[in-house]
Amino acid sequence: MAVSALDEIQAFLPCPTPDSWVEEAVKPENQAVLLIDHANCEKKAASTALNLIYRYIDHFELLNKMSRLAREEMRHFEQVIAIMQKRGIPYSNISASRYAAGLRQRVRTHEPAKLLDTLIVGAFIEARSCERFARLAPFLDPELKNFYQSLLTSEGRHYRDYLDLALQAGGAKEVNERLAVFRREERSLVETPDAEFRFHSGAPVTSDRGLSEVVSMGTLA
Amino acid sequence: MAVSALDEIQAFLPCPTPDSWVEEAVKPENQAVLLIDHANCEKKAASTALNLIYRYIDHFELLNKMSRLAREEMRHFEQVIAIMQKRGIPYSNISASRYAAGLRQRVRTHEPAKLLDTLIVGAFIEARSCERFARLAPFLDPELKNFYQSLLTSEGRHYRDYLDLALQAGGAKEVNERLAVFRREERSLVETPDAEFRFHSGAPVTSDRGLSEVVSMGTLA
Repeated sequence: MAVSALDEIQAFLPCPTPDSWVEEAVKPENQAVLLIDHANCEKKAASTALNLIYRYIDHFELLNKMSRLAREEMRHFEQVIAIMQKRGIPYSNISASRYAAGLRQRVRTHEPAKLLDTLIVGAFIEARSCERFARLAPFLDPELKNFYQSLLTSEGRHYRDYLDLALQAGGAKEVNERLAVFRREERSLVETPDAEFRFHSGAPVTSDRGLSEVVSMGTLA
Repeated sequence: MAVSALDEIQAFLPCPTPDSWVEEAVKPENQAVLLIDHANCEKKAASTALNLIYRYIDHFELLNKMSRLAREEMRHFEQVIAIMQKRGIPYSNISASRYAAGLRQRVRTHEPAKLLDTLIVGAFIEARSCERFARLAPFLDPELKNFYQSLLTSEGRHYRDYLDLALQAGGAKEVNERLAVFRREERSLVETPDAEFRFHSGAPVTSDRGLSEVVSMGTLA
């Protein structure tokens, strides 16, 4: 992926991933969770695209872009599980992070607003994934490093596809208004403490930041 | 696709597609329904594979085969909608045929029987699709003919993938018993009159076969 495309994605996102998340993600004890959650994210991305394909059948460009996107996500899924299998990491059930669900809470329920918002959520998820792959790559073993760097290009293209479709669905003014809403939400999901480590989780709750402090920040009930 | 592979598929299926269905399918007035239903079948095949990927996460070979299968089906989906778009066929909503739902009614609800039966249903759907592509191809315009012939290879491979996974899941004896059950059901779905024309529909209800006769055959309520 060209540096300029990564620059564009970093400018699109409201904030960089906290250093504390990167430190947490590269711990050897988190490698299994990182890979399993990554596999889950790839298949979830494919099924989100497939849902859009089921829902908006009269929109040929969307159908075509989402079908290609789903195929690429499934290809990545195969690549992740091949690495898991090679490393003897069993594919166990782990819960999804709060991230995608948190963004989707802001999706309006009436059309065409629902489509527009869903596409914007897609753009954020792809952009954040791209940013995290780029952040993580330098700290990983050669195999994972190469793999994550290879993902940057397609995740960057997926972000662009979602944004282009959103601009077609809503026009620049509405898209900008909604981007502002989702940007605030995304920043909160990325920067506030998150008790559960996942590929899209928030700032990790570390031992030097006590649970009481986290509670007072309003993240845990 | 090699002739021998098509021979294998024809031997696997309980009966050939009735000539009357082929005659119905090549009528110009049915071209739009044929293509729309084909597009629907491709995306349904991909989402069925994705459902299996969600449900059986500890089975790496299944995950890998189903992911590849889903990618191929989505590629075919793109090819079908490109032809629709070129021919000015709008992608309207049409109901699914009775075929897949009819087969799925026989799927047992407890594991591991549910997995075994679901895989066998997958094998029948792929095999029947393959057989119908081969039956239709000689009667179609060059573009559709080439496209359908190109699909034979992959649909034939998908049939094999499903059958291999079924044999792993259940062993030869149980697979043969269940194949017999589904073979009876499949034959009935293919040979009995079906009021609705679709890619997997049964024998068409033609004007020289009155509705009363169809009702007396027990297909319509």
